[in-house]
Amino acid sequence: MNSAGERFRITLWGESHGPMVGIAIDGVPAGIPLSADDFRDDLARRRAGAPGTTARRERDEPQIVSGLWQGHTTGAPLTILFANTDTRPEDYRSLTEHCRPSHADRTARIKWHGFNDPRGGGHLSGRLTVALVAAGVVAKRCLPQLRFRTCLTEVGGLCTPARFAETVEAARAAGDSVGGVVECRITGVPAGTGEPLFGAVESVAARLLFAIPAVKGVEFGAGFAGSRMRGSQYNDPIVDAEGRTATNHDGGINGGIANGNELVVRVAVKPTPSIARTQHTFDFSAGRMEPLVIEGRHDACIALRCGVVVEAAMAVALADLML
Amino acid sequence: MNSAGERFRITLWGESHGPMVGIAIDGVPAGIPLSADDFRDDLARRRAGAPGTTARRERDEPQIVSGLWQGHTTGAPLTILFANTDTRPEDYRSLTEHCRPSHADRTARIKWHGFNDPRGGGHLSGRLTVALVAAGVVAKRCLPQLRFRTCLTEVGGLCTPARFAETVEAARAAGDSVGGVVECRITGVPAGTGEPLFGAVESVAARLLFAIPAVKGVEFGAGFAGSRMRGSQYNDPIVDAEGRTATNHDGGINGGIANGNELVVRVAVKPTPSIARTQHTFDFSAGRMEPLVIEGRHDACIALRCGVVVEAAMAVALADLML
Amino acid sequence: MNSAGERFRITLWGESHGPMVGIAIDGVPAGIPLSADDFRDDLARRRAGAPGTTARRERDEPQIVSGLWQGHTTGAPLTILFANTDTRPEDYRSLTEHCRPSHADRTARIKWHGFNDPRGGGHLSGRLTVALVAAGVVAKRCLPQLRFRTCLTEVGGLCTPARFAETVEAARAAGDSVGGVVECRITGVPAGTGEPLFGAVESVAARLLFAIPAVKGVEFGAGFAGSRMRGSQYNDPIVDAEGRTATNHDGGINGGIANGNELVVRVAVKPTPSIARTQHTFDFSAGRMEPLVIEGRHDACIALRCGVVVEAAMAVALADLML
Amino acid sequence: MNSAGERFRITLWGESHGPMVGIAIDGVPAGIPLSADDFRDDLARRRAGAPGTTARRERDEPQIVSGLWQGHTTGAPLTILFANTDTRPEDYRSLTEHCRPSHADRTARIKWHGFNDPRGGGHLSGRLTVALVAAGVVAKRCLPQLRFRTCLTEVGGLCTPARFAETVEAARAAGDSVGGVVECRITGVPAGTGEPLFGAVESVAARLLFAIPAVKGVEFGAGFAGSRMRGSQYNDPIVDAEGRTATNHDGGINGGIANGNELVVRVAVKPTPSIARTQHTFDFSAGRMEPLVIEGRHDACIALRCGVVVEAAMAVALADLML
Repeated sequence: MNSAGERFRITLWGESHGPMVGIAIDGVPAGIPLSADDFRDDLARRRAGAPGTTARRERDEPQIVSGLWQGHTTGAPLTILFANTDTRPEDYRSLTEHCRPSHADRTARIKWHGFNDPRGGGHLSGRLTVALVAAGVVAKRCLPQLRFRTCLTEVGGLCTPARFAETVEAARAAGDSVGGVVECRITGVPAGTGEPLFGAVESVAARLLFAIPAVKGVEFGAGFAGSRMRGSQYNDPIVDAEGRTATNHDGGINGGIANGNELVVRVAVKPTPSIARTQHTFDFSAGRMEPLVIEGRHDACIALRCGVVVEAAMAVALADLML
Repeated sequence: MNSAGERFRITLWGESHGPMVGIAIDGVPAGIPLSADDFRDDLARRRAGAPGTTARRERDEPQIVSGLWQGHTTGAPLTILFANTDTRPEDYRSLTEHCRPSHADRTARIKWHGFNDPRGGGHLSGRLTVALVAAGVVAKRCLPQLRFRTCLTEVGGLCTPARFAETVEAARAAGDSVGGVVECRITGVPAGTGEPLFGAVESVAARLLFAIPAVKGVEFGAGFAGSRMRGSQYNDPIVDAEGRTATNHDGGINGGIANGNELVVRVAVKPTPSIARTQHTFDFSAGRMEPLVIEGRHDACIALRCGVVVEAAMAVALADLML
Repeated sequence: MNSAGERFRITLWGESHGPMVGIAIDGVPAGIPLSADDFRDDLARRRAGAPGTTARRERDEPQIVSGLWQGHTTGAPLTILFANTDTRPEDYRSLTEHCRPSHADRTARIKWHGFNDPRGGGHLSGRLTVALVAAGVVAKRCLPQLRFRTCLTEVGGLCTPARFAETVEAARAAGDSVGGVVECRITGVPAGTGEPLFGAVESVAARLLFAIPAVKGVEFGAGFAGSRMRGSQYNDPIVDAEGRTATNHDGGINGGIANGNELVVRVAVKPTPSIARTQHTFDFSAGRMEPLVIEGRHDACIALRCGVVVEAAMAVALADLML
Repeated sequence: MNSAGERFRITLWGESHGPMVGIAIDGVPAGIPLSADDFRDDLARRRAGAPGTTARRERDEPQIVSGLWQGHTTGAPLTILFANTDTRPEDYRSLTEHCRPSHADRTARIKWHGFNDPRGGGHLSGRLTVALVAAGVVAKRCLPQLRFRTCLTEVGGLCTPARFAETVEAARAAGDSVGGVVECRITGVPAGTGEPLFGAVESVAARLLFAIPAVKGVEFGAGFAGSRMRGSQYNDPIVDAEGRTATNHDGGINGGIANGNELVVRVAVKPTPSIARTQHTFDFSAGRMEPLVIEGRHDACIALRCGVVVEAAMAVALADLML
């Protein structure tokens, strides 16, 4: 289903090349000052424009159509719409039979018996992350005590930020794409945040993070690297009465509950599946593998635009647990 | 909250050293043959006994107290109880002030203002996974078309199964512990399984997987390694009319929806935080760091017992999406 | 929260005098033919215009902005917007301090600490029922086997339909209002529909029905009158192999589960609280009771427009239980 | 499904003639003093024993098996079991084919394809209300500011309490049964309690109330009688700065939100469907209507035992909205 959250509940809708995408946010406390301007910075971080990002340009002007009055949230559902303006549905004509590899073209078609909107991924498109970013902005306004530091720690397997741009450019020039790893660090999460079992900070966050297209891995603290340590190395000893730990291999979470230290999460973003070079894949109308050239405008490295989306998912998760 | 699932909903309760742990499973179809015997194999896989596992011995006899009649499920909630018999609460006396590093002792205490049951982790204990394994057995009976292959692919950073036992033994002998990586592969998941966004196979599965104590990372298909590939390498071309793919870097999931290929998930399990050797950590009653020796009976490698729990979480996730 | 439903889930937003009200419907099966025209009849039944209804005129043109492609539902969330055009927020200036009796002015103000949109009831307005009616239309399209017969059985305490109009007119002429009772009968509900306990047909329906402003009572079958019968009179004997019953005091539901007979529900609608004549009620700014004259345009009998809303709520409830 | 609630969530299980019924309560705050003794009074109010109640005698000893430690709630799920001891499953042998009129025998059989436990109604039995009463006790402990006054206002259509006993006895002597109306009044509910739309106090309460077997109608304040008033009579003017109203036709709720006045709800309970006298109803094995004599032990007026169950449902609803 297209809703998540118990106390800060988001509901998303829309398609990549339909008239708009939107989000309704339930559980926003009354009295929080909010305006369309507050969305500008985070939406800009997500927007295309840098080398390696898609040529599709959306203005991403948030239209707040409910839940706001006289510049403050009212406590009623806050609904935000984003018009789709730069659509080119004609780019996607032939994809229903000749499915793009590692895309959802075929799974969506099977799931919805061919009635899904196939244009640009339809409902299963990265376009919907604009609404998630908007939810993140609202969540952050509700939780001003939180501080987020989000960055790309890897691009195409390289860990040297100075070389990220050239890596992406080399891939793009080769008609190819690269993936990356996004890291988000959050301070200000009070110890005691989170619930047991399925309400663990990791559980609530991972559910949202894996809803972001192209995310295929999530780890907290030392994560997979931590599984290679011994307990004596891994364990985070407490060093003071505030509960600060000498190391932070647990990423600020014990037993699913925040311990007051920095919350650390890393997300693996796969390479953009839409690449310029010809691919060979099955054509269901032809009944055999055929060369496929993907039209449309695409990112050579979707991870470049993913940071703020990951941050938004974390903000929404924490709003759900903290409000 | 201690419930998960929309159509196959599980609710867990109990404490490590209380009288019992239990689970209510709602949404089980009527008419499925089931008996206490069906639980034997999976419970045995989770049970301690092998070198490197805890000395605590529970009989893990499932008591089915509702939802079963004349050997078949009735459609009403299926409730299963497991008595705790081999408890030693006296081992945990001093832990409330002198918290075990990388354990939930302190976070639980803060969250519940000191009213939590602190004995052996209380409600936040691996003991509750016995109930999750039972839910997995029921889920598997509901979905007989699924085939699970689950194994440890790493122990203590080593990828050579022949050397796992000695790695664990070396850690144990050193008063230490090791982590590991569990991989679960599932065939038989029909293409089209899963929902958009927060109902993605990855989202639903990850929420359950991160509820397992000691799990700190989850990846699907190529996961983090996939983020280091180029699109041209990563993309899984479709090779036939059944939708089979030449490679399976996406782990059988596109756009959150199963594509009919093998579903592949890997889980990072941290080293058991309870280790025999002395640790230095803050003592809240003393107001300074003090040496801590952990009593109690513990696993040197909790990952050894985690495979069937991971498998159970996947079975429960798929039951929720497929029923 | 502003969502209801597990399998057919609706989320509503908007305010009486804001730019629009809207609804997102999740769980609509793919492939159902649908167009804006399909909404015309039910929206017309709700619309004002008859004697005794408000002078506010909204065009109620449904704008379907997601989940529809090439004339069929796609399986993604179906979102429908209704612009508010005939608003007169200036009518509601003074109501925040001098609250209208039996209205939500004061409770909304307390709940949201004065940040609620007070114009025309804001989010707590009958205006939102336009979105519920739209959801009902979609639910009916999903369940074409159902047949609804809905009527007013009482107006102002009278049970003679021929005299309803004059009763309303007499109240209106006296600057007053009347209530009524709406009855909805549904055939085609398959035996076995409904879940135990909180998923009872009555439970799921009542939750939605009581969300309609002015509804203060709900009964199924013989309802309150049934509580005055003896068991030997009340009990509905089964008369044939199809399970038809000689009487239908249970309103087609046994143990919360439909028995295949006609489903019967009745709803008590209170008199419109906004009346033209002067009322005396506490003025919080003056600190004493003061005469209040309510501006704005109102229905003398809101029950006249309620039938299709009740029907919509029942359709939504059944869609949630039957899909 | 067998769960209800967002913040105070109850999950029920068990069958009338199975080994036990039970309830898990999630969302109970930590630190509330609780013991088995606290349940005694409310369980006694529900227990049979008075003239007109069933001859089945259960000890109703609550076994608290999780979520309690050192006499206080821990914040983890509180689970309570009630053993079934006085069962006589042999009384229900023939009911699967010759269904009791106005009982759930046939609907349960259809819903679960004959796999339901048919003994004494199985899962759809009034026996489960013992668990709901227990949840009510816990809810009341969480909300000590509430005061409940619950009584029978009608029995068999009579409103004179002095004659209730003879009315029930007359019915019983005639091999028949009677229904009744339960009224529950609650003070101490803070103004502002409740949510818009589907979280209305009426919606949340009605969902729980209609889950009680035999309940067929629910009204708040003046309810159905209110629908027969004019607005000028019905409206509740506010008389002071505390928001007290001169009348209380709205039953303490405006727009779904409590206004701080007494909360008033009335519930219609149908006559017990199990009656001693012979009934004629369809026998599915014989293929024709046949006389049916119901064995088993039954209440001549189930409403006599329903008051505390209604009160419990209201307490649970308010805990969900207030905690």
